[in-house]
Amino acid sequence: MIPRYTRPEMAAIWSPESRYRIWFEIEAHATDKLAELGVVPASAAKAVWKARDMEFDIARIDEIEREVKHDVIAFLTHLSELVGEEARFVHQGLTSSDVLDTCLAVQMTRSADLLLEGMDRVMAALKARAFEHKTTICIGRSHGIHAEPTTMGLKFARFHAEFARNRARLVSARAEIATCAISGAVGTFANVDPAVEAHVAKKLGLTVEPISTQVIPRDRHAAFFACLGLIASAIENLSVEVRHLQRSEVREAQEYFSPGQKGSSAMPHKRNPILTENLTGLARLVRSAVTPAMENVALWHERDISHSSVERGIGPDACVHLDFALHRTASMIEGLIVHADRCKENLDAFGGIHNSQRVLLALTQAGASREESYRLVQRNGMKTWDEGGRLIDHLKADTDVMALLGADGIAACFDDAWHLRHVDTIFARVFADA
Amino acid sequence: MIPRYTRPEMAAIWSPESRYRIWFEIEAHATDKLAELGVVPASAAKAVWKARDMEFDIARIDEIEREVKHDVIAFLTHLSELVGEEARFVHQGLTSSDVLDTCLAVQMTRSADLLLEGMDRVMAALKARAFEHKTTICIGRSHGIHAEPTTMGLKFARFHAEFARNRARLVSARAEIATCAISGAVGTFANVDPAVEAHVAKKLGLTVEPISTQVIPRDRHAAFFACLGLIASAIENLSVEVRHLQRSEVREAQEYFSPGQKGSSAMPHKRNPILTENLTGLARLVRSAVTPAMENVALWHERDISHSSVERGIGPDACVHLDFALHRTASMIEGLIVHADRCKENLDAFGGIHNSQRVLLALTQAGASREESYRLVQRNGMKTWDEGGRLIDHLKADTDVMALLGADGIAACFDDAWHLRHVDTIFARVFADA
Amino acid sequence: MIPRYTRPEMAAIWSPESRYRIWFEIEAHATDKLAELGVVPASAAKAVWKARDMEFDIARIDEIEREVKHDVIAFLTHLSELVGEEARFVHQGLTSSDVLDTCLAVQMTRSADLLLEGMDRVMAALKARAFEHKTTICIGRSHGIHAEPTTMGLKFARFHAEFARNRARLVSARAEIATCAISGAVGTFANVDPAVEAHVAKKLGLTVEPISTQVIPRDRHAAFFACLGLIASAIENLSVEVRHLQRSEVREAQEYFSPGQKGSSAMPHKRNPILTENLTGLARLVRSAVTPAMENVALWHERDISHSSVERGIGPDACVHLDFALHRTASMIEGLIVHADRCKENLDAFGGIHNSQRVLLALTQAGASREESYRLVQRNGMKTWDEGGRLIDHLKADTDVMALLGADGIAACFDDAWHLRHVDTIFARVFADA
Amino acid sequence: MIPRYTRPEMAAIWSPESRYRIWFEIEAHATDKLAELGVVPASAAKAVWKARDMEFDIARIDEIEREVKHDVIAFLTHLSELVGEEARFVHQGLTSSDVLDTCLAVQMTRSADLLLEGMDRVMAALKARAFEHKTTICIGRSHGIHAEPTTMGLKFARFHAEFARNRARLVSARAEIATCAISGAVGTFANVDPAVEAHVAKKLGLTVEPISTQVIPRDRHAAFFACLGLIASAIENLSVEVRHLQRSEVREAQEYFSPGQKGSSAMPHKRNPILTENLTGLARLVRSAVTPAMENVALWHERDISHSSVERGIGPDACVHLDFALHRTASMIEGLIVHADRCKENLDAFGGIHNSQRVLLALTQAGASREESYRLVQRNGMKTWDEGGRLIDHLKADTDVMALLGADGIAACFDDAWHLRHVDTIFARVFADA
Repeated sequence: MIPRYTRPEMAAIWSPESRYRIWFEIEAHATDKLAELGVVPASAAKAVWKARDMEFDIARIDEIEREVKHDVIAFLTHLSELVGEEARFVHQGLTSSDVLDTCLAVQMTRSADLLLEGMDRVMAALKARAFEHKTTICIGRSHGIHAEPTTMGLKFARFHAEFARNRARLVSARAEIATCAISGAVGTFANVDPAVEAHVAKKLGLTVEPISTQVIPRDRHAAFFACLGLIASAIENLSVEVRHLQRSEVREAQEYFSPGQKGSSAMPHKRNPILTENLTGLARLVRSAVTPAMENVALWHERDISHSSVERGIGPDACVHLDFALHRTASMIEGLIVHADRCKENLDAFGGIHNSQRVLLALTQAGASREESYRLVQRNGMKTWDEGGRLIDHLKADTDVMALLGADGIAACFDDAWHLRHVDTIFARVFADA
Repeated sequence: MIPRYTRPEMAAIWSPESRYRIWFEIEAHATDKLAELGVVPASAAKAVWKARDMEFDIARIDEIEREVKHDVIAFLTHLSELVGEEARFVHQGLTSSDVLDTCLAVQMTRSADLLLEGMDRVMAALKARAFEHKTTICIGRSHGIHAEPTTMGLKFARFHAEFARNRARLVSARAEIATCAISGAVGTFANVDPAVEAHVAKKLGLTVEPISTQVIPRDRHAAFFACLGLIASAIENLSVEVRHLQRSEVREAQEYFSPGQKGSSAMPHKRNPILTENLTGLARLVRSAVTPAMENVALWHERDISHSSVERGIGPDACVHLDFALHRTASMIEGLIVHADRCKENLDAFGGIHNSQRVLLALTQAGASREESYRLVQRNGMKTWDEGGRLIDHLKADTDVMALLGADGIAACFDDAWHLRHVDTIFARVFADA
Repeated sequence: MIPRYTRPEMAAIWSPESRYRIWFEIEAHATDKLAELGVVPASAAKAVWKARDMEFDIARIDEIEREVKHDVIAFLTHLSELVGEEARFVHQGLTSSDVLDTCLAVQMTRSADLLLEGMDRVMAALKARAFEHKTTICIGRSHGIHAEPTTMGLKFARFHAEFARNRARLVSARAEIATCAISGAVGTFANVDPAVEAHVAKKLGLTVEPISTQVIPRDRHAAFFACLGLIASAIENLSVEVRHLQRSEVREAQEYFSPGQKGSSAMPHKRNPILTENLTGLARLVRSAVTPAMENVALWHERDISHSSVERGIGPDACVHLDFALHRTASMIEGLIVHADRCKENLDAFGGIHNSQRVLLALTQAGASREESYRLVQRNGMKTWDEGGRLIDHLKADTDVMALLGADGIAACFDDAWHLRHVDTIFARVFADA
Repeated sequence: MIPRYTRPEMAAIWSPESRYRIWFEIEAHATDKLAELGVVPASAAKAVWKARDMEFDIARIDEIEREVKHDVIAFLTHLSELVGEEARFVHQGLTSSDVLDTCLAVQMTRSADLLLEGMDRVMAALKARAFEHKTTICIGRSHGIHAEPTTMGLKFARFHAEFARNRARLVSARAEIATCAISGAVGTFANVDPAVEAHVAKKLGLTVEPISTQVIPRDRHAAFFACLGLIASAIENLSVEVRHLQRSEVREAQEYFSPGQKGSSAMPHKRNPILTENLTGLARLVRSAVTPAMENVALWHERDISHSSVERGIGPDACVHLDFALHRTASMIEGLIVHADRCKENLDAFGGIHNSQRVLLALTQAGASREESYRLVQRNGMKTWDEGGRLIDHLKADTDVMALLGADGIAACFDDAWHLRHVDTIFARVFADA
């Protein structure tokens, strides 16, 4: 968890305080049910809840853990110190993993909720900018080479669509991870009734894990981290686009540059796309959680604890860094300066050769073979590219082309509005439910 | 695509023949719609379909491609050779990626269908074996150390549950990848009406891509490969379990060993779990597609072609190897020999210390503190472990324990059936919809 | 192994023919030594060598393998068919892995040799182009934003340096993988004298593996694939640079475009950097071998066979694709068209603000504080950026700057040659041993 | 950086205090040389060194950074606050990356030194235990199945050899990362003489980077992290072995279990291999740094800053966690309890079938064909496996075998000492230079 890429809201979910508080809730709800089932005295259940308003002393728990080398026992011992003798009934029939894994499920679902908020903010920003620049015409590029016109709004819209898909994936991944397992040492409920699991699950907003071993199966977690990897990749995708648009030769967009900000100690004129470069790196970092999460799936028999150290790392780190990245992405989009004038300049920079495809089709329609049409367009396109001038003029000076299309036929191919006539259709598709 | 790990059904989907056949269908359906829209002559659409019953000459297409260095142009040229002059109207307004990406979507959905069949076979095998061994008692292990009893059926059941989750994920991933994009050079439908896309999509069983650039966005593919990575990890999980059960000291299960098979050139007595070891490796191989698929998401502007070489590798390879692995997994499960007698021997190997948790709870119930109970159980457990004998006897010889539980109270803790009393509940959860 | 990204030289190393030929050599040399040691009859050793000039019937070996389900036994059986009865002494005391692992070592070292050739070709091309464009001035960019001048030669030189480092790494990795293990079922030489291993190693140009189990330890292989991942990343690095230089707005370099080549079916004017985009993807593909190779390191006890299926994939694939990528990289560099005129145009595009750092230093030298200097440069730099014109003129119009530097002092900061004065020093460092 | 997996020595290297101290040294040494070159006043160089004994106020630097949004400028501003006016000459002609990247090189080399210490401790422990158990005979296993005898000492020895290889790799990786770049905004030394770089490099124990851009090329860092990934994999390899040896059915080794330690809240008798399970997870975590480090290699043009956020994560995390893992590994090996009696019991558990390979060879030597020998051994091996009894007895009861070998010939195959006769040879190879 890198401090500068951490928002306190997400860090709080993964703090020791939160963890112990969730452990407490699991134990307390479980004890309630155990009391109801007559396994422990009702007075015990009541006693436990006294700790609801007490603060856990983390240093003290750490101290006990150093001695007993077991975190849950350390917590339970401290709980006894707080609520007294009756605490001996707490955790009756449970195994440590019942508490640890259910707690992790709670932390991951809470993290998912926070991430969904971040995605909503990103999507709101993308939608607003998409509509704002729906018809801001610019050149579309394949292979980094000018192709045909598109609009800045379509760029924002496509990232919106990608985030919307990822949002749906995260909603699924959240549902998958939101399970509660209180099933004992090997998942057989040998010493704890399934009713306890059902009760705790309900109280914590989880579903019961249909079949656990000592642990909740790790494919659920792996699916969650794979989803985070996809969201991170979407952030990279968007970031790479902005970085391209901001480069000196393009300058179609620019990250907001605050008055007090110094771009570089050496080159004061520079306005660097540092937010999106940073996001590109954060995407790599978040994505690096995917493989170890998948390596965690194959545990030995009814569990080994190899997954635990991995999750102590990637659990908070991937959630915290992605959360930060989403909000940085949102701010970046919200503040992004779009230079419509530069978009137009770039579009017109090569004599209108981006219309060559339309000329090609017109020639084919006019009866030329595909190969002939291709040759005619290519020779004028190359001329425009190599010698300058405007394609429309070169075509008009080409007697073969003139014979097929005539001056009006040629001119009809050079109308930029033509390229925008289906933008509404696309927007309707993308923002139908948004 | 490693020949020995390839089933012909899956290889066929990724063969040049299939690819050209799908290209043909895309082009032919598109031409139909273009004719209906009056963009090309109706005769052209009719002419194209003549190739439906012709065979494409792959060597000839390769030859043309070597000259023009463009695969789709090579195919279209060959199509002209087959159906004649009218083929010049084919591909009107389309861009190569319209064909390539829609074809890939078809190949991936067909692959998904085949993988789902494989998963169904695995799940059917797991379900059958789960019910067969529902009450075959065996020791459950955490950390590789004996814990409490479970059943072989529960093991099969939990892998079934994992495969069922992965099946649902694959159904989602299939739906996500099943889109058709025929939207032109930068996705604006500049030279092709959206109706063409809608028509082709319908004919091929796809949905329209709401917003494409030159290509279908690569997060869809990345989500697909991430799902394959999860399925591969499930295969690894199951395989690692079998490998453990088959090791010489455990021998609770064994891969089917055909009469003609030689386990080793040097040690004729050996019956090695080579199928599951092989599957463990195949899982790593399939999983290795996940990261490059995610790296493919961030393409430059409206597309760069870096994703293409990656997909030529991981597309067929991950699908083919996973398909093979699923069927090998199914065969392995179907043929797996379960040694119930060895399960029982192992369960009883350590003097019944797997019941110590029950004794612990009984002591607590009888009024001992958690710490006291723990100490009492631990000293007798350690004695059993270190000196041998049966825990029940050591407990009866321990006056402190006797004082608390009495002989009957102790005996009540040593009943294996106790551990199986919730198996039906768990099976009902797992196989509710299966 | 994707056919279009395969050179026959590398494919040959990984063909069944090569593999059986290497197996034969291992067995034949081993039998020689066994005969010398008196373990097998001298006539047996002599008999085996008869197969030296015979062709192995691969279909026949496959047929036997389908029956016995063991590749080495199948080969040995076929060898008996070829050389007769005496072949029963072949493989005496060896275990299959002795043959398989030593063979893999031979294949990997031969692959390394071929890769080194490819790297040498890349480095020769880079060196030639570096010297050709040693003083071709162009703008250097950080964050995609113009910074200070550099030269095209320095770009080639830095990639040369990176390839030189990777070459040294590959030489090390080759040495690490070039070991021979003939040590029996668990590496104890129980049934084969260490002298056999030493003899075979010498004959095959390998060193003896100091300690093997049943297999050569897999960290050696993992180190090899990690090295291939680094080389792939170097190719990506170089490719990304070329793709940037070729984009429409930059056009400082361009991949060679052969006369017959069609860039796109739709946009005949386009000259796309498809080689480097392709190489970017191939880099991802090669790099995907690194993680599974590392996952292969932790085998169970004296070996499990999980590594094998992984290596059947990544062994040939990573070598073949990297080999192809190296030669494509070399061709691309050799043919790359550098537009020195465009370099100069881009350098001068922003009114000379790339000299702002020099002005900043001059101001500091003239007695202004760092902050004051920064402010003075920033306000004139921003003006040049926002309003156009040349920085030198804005500075001369700024009375504060004039007061500190005077017209001559300002002019002295605008000399591009200044930036090239250490190029020789850098070239001397890079090409010292090259 | 997970606190519980952090040793203070390694954490200190990556603390803000260390970073600023290294920055200071770089700036101060650079200013010395700049003064010597006459670029800045000698008094300035002298003034800067006043801060040598001052403490940097990290909170104050953070405060400045929040305003100027640039870490190096913030530091330089604070430095001015400490040493006064003359500090304006510091950083003359340098660019931020000169400081940042050289600092990172120092941190990584110091980390490497600490890791080498950890590796030495691991290797010392492995060597001691190897010699201690050089002839502690135990069964060797392939595929988890009993094969032939080996010794516990050979197990330790092979891990020693793997660590020794990794040690050599880390020494190389350390040398590769130990470079200093002070070459200005795009690496041309435009505003700083190469002599400054040479001076700082020498003072900090680094070599000069032959060719930098704005940054030190990232293949150096990637090679470093790949090396850490290999070391992590070695730890996993060793850990998986121990986990296997400790499982209940094997019990040949056991992690040291301190008197106060509780293995499980529920099962007091359990002694779980939690250290090695934990190490297995830490290995996955460290290894996850490899891919992002390789993705960092391809920066845009003369640098983009995407690598930075990645390195803020993986830099400290991979070093800290690996450092911790090495010391945990060393402690684990040092304290590992080896049960030689259990080794012997397991070796003898299957009636001596581990000698079947020797019988096979003896039969071949006695004139039986390979196939015949195989059949004879297999039928007796299978009998031993299926029906129990001792292989030697079954063989003696087999008239075909008796006809070929006689009772003495059979008995000669059942001598465990035979398997240990080359242990000295292997030890001599492994510990030659250790």
